[in-house]
Amino acid sequence: MNFRPYLPVLGLFLFVSLAVTAVADEGMWTFDNPPVKQLKEKYNFTPREQWLDHIRLSSVRFNDGGSGSFVSPNGLVITNHHVALGQLQKISNAQRDYVRDGFYAKTQAEEPKAPDLELNVLVSMENVTSRVHGAVKPGMTEKQALDARKAEQAKIQKESLDKTGLRSDVVSLYQGGEYWLYRYKKYTDVRIVFAPEQQAAFFGGDPDNFTFPRHDLDFALFRVYENGRPVQSKDYLKWNTKGAAEGDLVFVSGHPGSTERGLTVAQLENERDVIYPLRINRYKRELQALRAYSSRGAEPARQAADDIFSLENTVKAFTGEYNGMDKALFDKKSKEEADLRAKLAANPEWSREYGKAWDDIAAATRGQKELFKLQQYRSISTASKLASLARQIVVYVAEIKKPDAQRLNGYHESQLEELKFYLFSPAPIYPEFEEALLTFSLQDSRDQLGADDPWVKAILDGKAPAQVASEVIRGTKLTDPAVRKALAEGGEAAVNASTDPLVVLARKADPFFRDLRKQYEETVESVMTAAEEKIAKARFAIYGKLVYPDATFTLRLAFGTVQGYPMNGTKAPPKTTFYGLYDRSASFDNKPPFNLMPRFIQRKDKINLSTPLDFVASADIIGGNSGSPVISKNGEFVGIIFDGNIESLTGNFVYLEETNRAIAVHSAAIIEALRKLYDAPALANELEGK
Amino acid sequence: MNFRPYLPVLGLFLFVSLAVTAVADEGMWTFDNPPVKQLKEKYNFTPREQWLDHIRLSSVRFNDGGSGSFVSPNGLVITNHHVALGQLQKISNAQRDYVRDGFYAKTQAEEPKAPDLELNVLVSMENVTSRVHGAVKPGMTEKQALDARKAEQAKIQKESLDKTGLRSDVVSLYQGGEYWLYRYKKYTDVRIVFAPEQQAAFFGGDPDNFTFPRHDLDFALFRVYENGRPVQSKDYLKWNTKGAAEGDLVFVSGHPGSTERGLTVAQLENERDVIYPLRINRYKRELQALRAYSSRGAEPARQAADDIFSLENTVKAFTGEYNGMDKALFDKKSKEEADLRAKLAANPEWSREYGKAWDDIAAATRGQKELFKLQQYRSISTASKLASLARQIVVYVAEIKKPDAQRLNGYHESQLEELKFYLFSPAPIYPEFEEALLTFSLQDSRDQLGADDPWVKAILDGKAPAQVASEVIRGTKLTDPAVRKALAEGGEAAVNASTDPLVVLARKADPFFRDLRKQYEETVESVMTAAEEKIAKARFAIYGKLVYPDATFTLRLAFGTVQGYPMNGTKAPPKTTFYGLYDRSASFDNKPPFNLMPRFIQRKDKINLSTPLDFVASADIIGGNSGSPVISKNGEFVGIIFDGNIESLTGNFVYLEETNRAIAVHSAAIIEALRKLYDAPALANELEGK
Repeated sequence: MNFRPYLPVLGLFLFVSLAVTAVADEGMWTFDNPPVKQLKEKYNFTPREQWLDHIRLSSVRFNDGGSGSFVSPNGLVITNHHVALGQLQKISNAQRDYVRDGFYAKTQAEEPKAPDLELNVLVSMENVTSRVHGAVKPGMTEKQALDARKAEQAKIQKESLDKTGLRSDVVSLYQGGEYWLYRYKKYTDVRIVFAPEQQAAFFGGDPDNFTFPRHDLDFALFRVYENGRPVQSKDYLKWNTKGAAEGDLVFVSGHPGSTERGLTVAQLENERDVIYPLRINRYKRELQALRAYSSRGAEPARQAADDIFSLENTVKAFTGEYNGMDKALFDKKSKEEADLRAKLAANPEWSREYGKAWDDIAAATRGQKELFKLQQYRSISTASKLASLARQIVVYVAEIKKPDAQRLNGYHESQLEELKFYLFSPAPIYPEFEEALLTFSLQDSRDQLGADDPWVKAILDGKAPAQVASEVIRGTKLTDPAVRKALAEGGEAAVNASTDPLVVLARKADPFFRDLRKQYEETVESVMTAAEEKIAKARFAIYGKLVYPDATFTLRLAFGTVQGYPMNGTKAPPKTTFYGLYDRSASFDNKPPFNLMPRFIQRKDKINLSTPLDFVASADIIGGNSGSPVISKNGEFVGIIFDGNIESLTGNFVYLEETNRAIAVHSAAIIEALRKLYDAPALANELEGK
Repeated sequence: MNFRPYLPVLGLFLFVSLAVTAVADEGMWTFDNPPVKQLKEKYNFTPREQWLDHIRLSSVRFNDGGSGSFVSPNGLVITNHHVALGQLQKISNAQRDYVRDGFYAKTQAEEPKAPDLELNVLVSMENVTSRVHGAVKPGMTEKQALDARKAEQAKIQKESLDKTGLRSDVVSLYQGGEYWLYRYKKYTDVRIVFAPEQQAAFFGGDPDNFTFPRHDLDFALFRVYENGRPVQSKDYLKWNTKGAAEGDLVFVSGHPGSTERGLTVAQLENERDVIYPLRINRYKRELQALRAYSSRGAEPARQAADDIFSLENTVKAFTGEYNGMDKALFDKKSKEEADLRAKLAANPEWSREYGKAWDDIAAATRGQKELFKLQQYRSISTASKLASLARQIVVYVAEIKKPDAQRLNGYHESQLEELKFYLFSPAPIYPEFEEALLTFSLQDSRDQLGADDPWVKAILDGKAPAQVASEVIRGTKLTDPAVRKALAEGGEAAVNASTDPLVVLARKADPFFRDLRKQYEETVESVMTAAEEKIAKARFAIYGKLVYPDATFTLRLAFGTVQGYPMNGTKAPPKTTFYGLYDRSASFDNKPPFNLMPRFIQRKDKINLSTPLDFVASADIIGGNSGSPVISKNGEFVGIIFDGNIESLTGNFVYLEETNRAIAVHSAAIIEALRKLYDAPALANELEGK
């Protein structure tokens, strides 16, 4: 799955529970509530607790937006190349481009540290629903209730952190129907072991992205260290090189970022008519700006590569989702909504309690329409990383003065360590690139909001966007992590006294941000959260936990069958082979993005061309599942998820078993590549336990 | 193109001229009016007259519904395997299955005669519009005018046949805007030289049919004889084994069967709402009956194979066309129609002359709705070939007594030779199969029309369909060509006196057929023909011959570029390679219909796997173009058309350059296969002129 959830943006979207009872291979199930009934009925398989625990403890979350798993007892973790990409880029420079050329540390001594990568393993789950619900007292307004719930969550998190030292997140499931305290073992000393060339991992580029048949070796290997030594990972997935065959039941354990399967029809209409068009067009313009920068030369191209890659990916994903919001989808959703409301209407108590929720949401949606555009464009930090750091420091120094419960999300005590990890990251920053990005976003804000918008007036102060960007980026010292650290630690006084031009700009933008945030909370978020909770409660009353909650970038178990699907008039196969890689390359006369790396051409005769390369299964996944292991009934590693097919993009709103497919690299392809193409027999041996 | 036009059925559909000015790579152009302007503007290419004549005289029509071309000076003709299939089946029997196993005559002495194959070469074209139009006198009713035109056409044909001895057809183009006398050199001694196994020609079977990427060796070779010796074919296409590359301009010379690009919106609605659903459902039921018969054993399976193949093909094509009749298509067509009518309305004379045509058609369409179902089901000959022969003999003996001009289409003097060729064909007939087919069609007619329908009552006479079928098929002697010949030559007296139970049944059905035919002519055909002629004249007044006429199974020139297209979220490549064949097979674990013939497995290492296999071009083709040569600017053979992609199926109504693609076997693939897989170097040498 090349679409990694954009966590800061996702904050705007609320997670709601799904609309229908789960059937077939549908669902991203929490580990406390696996789909026992479905597995028994359809596959005659019953997961044991030990099996579930082993899989959970073998699964790893990449906190910058992906998944992975332990695949050796010596801390070896596998994920996607595109999840590793950011770290590979950060250890690269103009002389050594590990993204383009790949990387292999032949010995542990050669394994470099990933600059700012945090991995999490979910070690415990505790139901704290009654505590969070109990924080809301009779007579509270909706805003007061929202604040009370947030405060209680923050309190639980802090208590747990203090008590256990473990990262502790309260997770809202079923749109507030349940709250769980998830505790994570956290790893920050993660070292890079192996990555193929990006072209081998991402063969077919943007055209083939989100599609199948596919021919990608989208994997990379890290090793997790503690106290300077590889961690002894007792729970790891045993490698099965034979992999999965057509018809096999398989599981996917990973971290789907977000779904919106419970959105009401009014919300979906808003997505279709307002949110998606605005975002897609915005991203397309940003992509244009990135490409213009990239075209300046080899080094600018290298600097912008990761962002272009991510953004192309995002545009394609959003466009796919947008195109999927068709009449059929609305018909289905309208029917589901009507059915649920009819069930409620038949029960006077339910009707009184929950019946108004849909109208409340519809009203809040109208308010959201107006605020959304302002939120998008009244921001200095939508493109430039440096501006984003400045903005966060300005917010940070104000927030940490408040009691934890009153802080903005992202600035709670339990979140500060992760925030600082990013704020003070030593990862390189390229001023020319930042200047181009800030110029674009300021220009775009002025184009979209108009020159008379108060924010535009305040930020540009009568100057051209390029001039403002040039002044603040060339004048700022925030490229230095130590300067950022000093500023943040100096608190509000230091920030207010700063004459750093980027900090000055961020200070100017701050009141607008806070004002919009407040309006959004009062008129949209609080109303929607309350109404969605009502709908979720209504669903709970009817379906209980026979349904799964929307994705929340927390650990989930999906399941399905390795199988092809009807595609474009014919059948997509259950898998591809290395033959297909050579065919697709030759079909385009080896032209990019269908060009083979030289080693593939030189060593063609060494490869068994009928080795399975990628395969598809009906498991229900979405962005964030990137790097999730595909696991057999025996709990063995048989592949690694890296994408969904184009038909799966509507998975954000609905799962359709006939065509929705997760795409994985086959375990055999990884071994074949390591042994025959990359001269990495030691690594293949470690994976195969030889 | 696996969809071969069903010529008898096509008689019901009227050919009308296209709705829009040709742009881009659109159009199936007559050789008297090649797209000189388009070729000059887009490709800076001007076809010379000699070039056009050479291509025309190298092109061959397969009268059972396909195209081909001369590819050696010794009468070698190439067409598709699926065009040759019927003849291959006819020379096969329970012991030798050339469809399954392929065929290769190593010497000319071993070349068997195709049992009933007629090839035509278009040797001259003469504009006879003024004669046909002149036959209509002022004051004639529409029915009288229709009759007068038909009579004049028959007269022209007879005169030409008498004068030249050449097959002479008057062709209506631009829906009567022009009439042309086409004279054909006719070949009936055609011998079979080479065919690969059907599985190699039709790899991927029904799933891959009408789709791309594709991996088929869909070709076969015949040799044309005259006076017992191979014809010296002066005009033949020189073989270019290098073939065409991405971006190359290519031409397709062949015989597109029919298009309906000028249908009015009212007619398209009738197609969508009445005709397509009825036909698709009917064909699906017939397919079920064929499969039931096929499942009885190996020999029944062999007998039914060609029909199942054709019908699967037809169902997929019709379904594709039907699915393509979506809102976008109707929006486009409605706009075109409104534009044309607005142009007419601006000119009082045009308005008076042509303005009423659309309403006339809409009215006739309402009549057509009612008659269409009766025409479909009041027939004994929709499935059984034997019943069809009986029916045609009964019609034949009555028609030939009339003056030529008053006969039904298909029974004019100039058409009799071809008719007799089929009526008295020695091709085998399988009584058990015929009984199953007739049982199905009688049963289906009763199901669809109801037991009280007068035709059903007359035909079944109170018996079960299976009983009637059993009695007439087991009792008939018409399986013997000599019996059919004696009956036909005995005339009405012999037919009326016959007690052959199938002839008796055909006699019972005849009055119904004639009555429906008369109603259809009077209420639908005559009105539509006149109205469509008006619309065509109106278009002529506006566009002249800047547009091309609808397809009429006569020779046309199409052109386009070898290029991929956007497909299912990614790009379809311009070509496939042998690598892709092995990949697709391995992707499905070599399971049918993706299984490789043993020679492909045994000789894999001999093949250059990067050899192009199939390729696509934007040339505008449709069913009937099967077997058409793909020709370079230099007039050389670079490939052979065998299908269109799924996106091209709406080509019946509209050409969309972005996605409409013709699919061809690459010239290099044929040579590679003949030399490396089929041990046929002599044949490869003949093709390559070595």
